[in-house]
Amino acid sequence: MRGCSPVTFANSQPKIDPTALFKLSYGLYVITVGDEKDNGYISNTVFQVSENPTRIAVSCQKNNLSREIIEKTGILNVSVLTEDVPFEVIRHFGMQSGRDVDKFADFKETQRASNGVLYLSDFANAFISLKVISSLDLDSHILFICDITESKVLGSNDSCTYAHYHKSVKPKF
Amino acid sequence: MRGCSPVTFANSQPKIDPTALFKLSYGLYVITVGDEKDNGYISNTVFQVSENPTRIAVSCQKNNLSREIIEKTGILNVSVLTEDVPFEVIRHFGMQSGRDVDKFADFKETQRASNGVLYLSDFANAFISLKVISSLDLDSHILFICDITESKVLGSNDSCTYAHYHKSVKPKF
Repeated sequence: MRGCSPVTFANSQPKIDPTALFKLSYGLYVITVGDEKDNGYISNTVFQVSENPTRIAVSCQKNNLSREIIEKTGILNVSVLTEDVPFEVIRHFGMQSGRDVDKFADFKETQRASNGVLYLSDFANAFISLKVISSLDLDSHILFICDITESKVLGSNDSCTYAHYHKSVKPKF
Repeated sequence: MRGCSPVTFANSQPKIDPTALFKLSYGLYVITVGDEKDNGYISNTVFQVSENPTRIAVSCQKNNLSREIIEKTGILNVSVLTEDVPFEVIRHFGMQSGRDVDKFADFKETQRASNGVLYLSDFANAFISLKVISSLDLDSHILFICDITESKVLGSNDSCTYAHYHKSVKPKF
């Protein structure tokens, strides 16, 4: 014995390792919205939450301009990004605010869905038009629960997962 | 002219192609629960929906036994399945009901988290213990919004996505 016994923590709190959350899988999407002006942002939180009727949940940061527009118009489009998406598209839609720039001024790879909102016609294998039916306040975010009003497959390239983005799209510095 | 003109649908409804939904990306998880008896089921719908505080959403079919147990106990664990998960594990947890069989009678690759509920110690790279803070009725499903009470990384194997499951785990008949 060297005078140093192991420290034990009886009744210690369970540990939360935040890196365990990195193991959850997500896709990568451009969410597009529009009122007087078109706007869009990058999301990884789009998922089907029910069937009969089919409903889609989208979580959106509260401080996001698109969140304000969704709450005004009640509609949005999801473009499902593919593995060949260039980092520039992620940077363009995800790393600047529609408050500072018009994200569609120079981005022309788009079409307009029946709801009047743009979707991406390149780097996307599907788009889904959504209509918000309810929302849940989650402090930092709003979770929108939506009905589908239109959807179309645009191509056969594989969907970009968040894991693929980190491995192969995001530049390594 | 052969007496047969193309049919046009003016003002036709926008089309909903359900296969567009297959382009959304998901992970694959075993959700474990317990009251008098341990139970678990396969889910692809586990998402972080907010930060500060971090909250996780889990969508669960209403006719699921585990849904009843979650509503009674308010707690559940998520085991994040890895790419090496055998189809037998998916079949075991996902294609039979805890009403008919004790799913943990012969499945021993488990440990118990601090909340007293089992998690998978094999074929999983992380577990997350959740406490339900609110829920949303979505007709066919209930969406549980949860706080994290414990989480741990269990390994470094890649997480199994739903796409990987369909491509490489599910048997081709």
